[in-house]
Amino acid sequence: MIDADLPPEALIARMGTRARAAATTLAAMPAAAKSAALREAADAIRDASATIVAANAEDMASGLARGLSGAMLDRLRLDADRVAAIADGVAAVAGLADPVGTIISEDVRPNGLALSRVRVPIGIIGIIYESRPNVTADAGALAAMAGNAAILRGGSEAARSNAAIHSALVAGLTAGGMPEDAVQLVPTTDRAAVGAMLRAEGLIDLVIPRGGKGLVARVQAEARVPVLAHLDGINHVYVDVAADYDMARRIVIDAKLRRTGVCGAMETLLIHRGWPHRDALIAALDAAGCEVRGDADVATLGYAAASADDWDTEYLDAIASVALVDGVDDAAAFIAAHGSHHTDAIVTDDVATAEDFLARVDSAIVLWNASTQFADGGEFGLGAEIGIATGRLHARGPVALEGLTTYKWVGRGTGQIRGTVA
Amino acid sequence: MIDADLPPEALIARMGTRARAAATTLAAMPAAAKSAALREAADAIRDASATIVAANAEDMASGLARGLSGAMLDRLRLDADRVAAIADGVAAVAGLADPVGTIISEDVRPNGLALSRVRVPIGIIGIIYESRPNVTADAGALAAMAGNAAILRGGSEAARSNAAIHSALVAGLTAGGMPEDAVQLVPTTDRAAVGAMLRAEGLIDLVIPRGGKGLVARVQAEARVPVLAHLDGINHVYVDVAADYDMARRIVIDAKLRRTGVCGAMETLLIHRGWPHRDALIAALDAAGCEVRGDADVATLGYAAASADDWDTEYLDAIASVALVDGVDDAAAFIAAHGSHHTDAIVTDDVATAEDFLARVDSAIVLWNASTQFADGGEFGLGAEIGIATGRLHARGPVALEGLTTYKWVGRGTGQIRGTVA
Repeated sequence: MIDADLPPEALIARMGTRARAAATTLAAMPAAAKSAALREAADAIRDASATIVAANAEDMASGLARGLSGAMLDRLRLDADRVAAIADGVAAVAGLADPVGTIISEDVRPNGLALSRVRVPIGIIGIIYESRPNVTADAGALAAMAGNAAILRGGSEAARSNAAIHSALVAGLTAGGMPEDAVQLVPTTDRAAVGAMLRAEGLIDLVIPRGGKGLVARVQAEARVPVLAHLDGINHVYVDVAADYDMARRIVIDAKLRRTGVCGAMETLLIHRGWPHRDALIAALDAAGCEVRGDADVATLGYAAASADDWDTEYLDAIASVALVDGVDDAAAFIAAHGSHHTDAIVTDDVATAEDFLARVDSAIVLWNASTQFADGGEFGLGAEIGIATGRLHARGPVALEGLTTYKWVGRGTGQIRGTVA
Repeated sequence: MIDADLPPEALIARMGTRARAAATTLAAMPAAAKSAALREAADAIRDASATIVAANAEDMASGLARGLSGAMLDRLRLDADRVAAIADGVAAVAGLADPVGTIISEDVRPNGLALSRVRVPIGIIGIIYESRPNVTADAGALAAMAGNAAILRGGSEAARSNAAIHSALVAGLTAGGMPEDAVQLVPTTDRAAVGAMLRAEGLIDLVIPRGGKGLVARVQAEARVPVLAHLDGINHVYVDVAADYDMARRIVIDAKLRRTGVCGAMETLLIHRGWPHRDALIAALDAAGCEVRGDADVATLGYAAASADDWDTEYLDAIASVALVDGVDDAAAFIAAHGSHHTDAIVTDDVATAEDFLARVDSAIVLWNASTQFADGGEFGLGAEIGIATGRLHARGPVALEGLTTYKWVGRGTGQIRGTVA
């Protein structure tokens, strides 16, 4: 066990050194062995259900006493069904195709050197998260299935729940042959440990924050190690002049209202000024229970007027800003000015306009005639996701196993040299 | 023209805004159009040869007056042949396959949503370099061919040469239909402009430093934007007990001595303790003109004893540290402790040992029976390289066109929604 009372830098350095040793072992584990260990872990979590629920009850009690909001308490709460779902999630990761060892490209050079690029694990992934204790198992399992060691830092409000889940997870993984330090949980709720993780260059290879905007903003501002994350999901649906009314209505209402708190929810609706159904669509959105904040033209229809800030706001609520635009050029320019490079969609029956939008809108995910709420690793067929990234490097959009790998160049020769040696 | 007297932050912000507009245009340019523009640029550089050489003569004169070293002056010097080689390099980039638009993966989801991942440019690439003026053309051409806008910041000692090359490059690119701001050169030698580039989050998407260790270390320490780079090339050749003597001798001498100043040069030689030819190999390296600094066993043969620092030193000179190891496990552990994740090689006739080494050594490039001096984008068939990266994210090893791209998810639906809407 790591001594939780070490100063944060020393604690993270100790954990990083152990993680590196574990990562070396994990990198060499065949897919079947990793899958088997994860299935053991899923069983161990199922077996520990009562213990986990009891630990969670203590977290819930102290959360209530500390006055956590109802939303936070709901995110924190575990019962037997939720623990079973966590175990199922780990088992599902065990069934995913392992990207490690995949050949990305191969070539024999004119001098006979056989050269390939081979997927390998990244190494050590740090996960920093808040109140949802399921992340302990989900993120640990995904990192380990891709051959990485994980260092997890959960929220203090979920400390007992996380410890109980982690304990079961590690018991299963080690029973299945993984090193004990494959998935480590930072054993302190001292916030300075987060800072130490963010500065752990050379020890932690990648940090992924999971949580609210405050957490992500802190991680992005302080990190000296690479980060995959998204800060905002200011997502647009552009309804073109050639859109079918009923398709547009269903997509817009789903994109906004299916779940308003997810990062893939629509926040701004752009409608072609010349589309005959524009007023009806806005009325339908309003009637579905969404507050409409419109530009000057939309406000004349009797809706609230949007402020300048509205166009740059992620509501995560039943509110949408609505603007009229003059076509796909105008829509693309609007999205470039106000979007967050997360998920943007067009609704149109015109193929050329759709392809123009898909080519020009520079977001991690661009969709034609589909709801922005599909922005999710599961929906994309990745089996799971460790997060959604809106940066431009390494991985964009939903990040799953492949995003947790990198590659190396492997050259096999027969004595090739570059110059001349007698 | 950008006003060179603006404060550095304002200058880079102005250039970044112009670069973003150019990047939007470049991202939509077909491969043939980009190639044609680069061929125009190659011609323009050829046509401007006398002007470029004259500008370079002024840089050389002031470099001499400022007491630059002979090595720096050689890197700075241009003549008609070197300018022709720069133009040829740009023409070669024009002939490379364009990765933009390549489909990385595609899938039709059970709900009918057709989903693909498509390569797109990264956006805006900042290149920070020192005395070699050819980087102005090489890096600008590579960035633009991958559909990116470039912001170049060269060394003050090459300011006139860079300006002359840049002027010809841009004249050719714009004649060929690229936006004027596709490749911008920072018009000041104020070092604060480098700091402004490194802090230009949201304006510059990726910084690539090209130059000595001091430059790379500064960039890595200060950058708030992502960086692709390598700080060191502490490369090992491990000669196994099953190595052929003559192959080992030729590879080791080539790896160390073909060019000692390149990042792919061998710095440390590891030899299996039980290999019968070990003393002969060390003697051959010594006889070829390389200073040997050995571990305790090697020193008993009459060579200098290595200090503890030697094992972590990139000599970039005709010096090698030499240690005996007990096999591939020991060699891999040695490389993990002292290597820089750049390029490491094994020489052996034993396939299993070779594959073990290739799997376990965690470097951007691992080679079997080939010289480490192949660590080069041209030798790897990439046509060119903008640098070699030893980090773990996005791109490793030689970085060329593909490394200057990212991807986006493109979904084409027929009205799919995730929930239910009446």
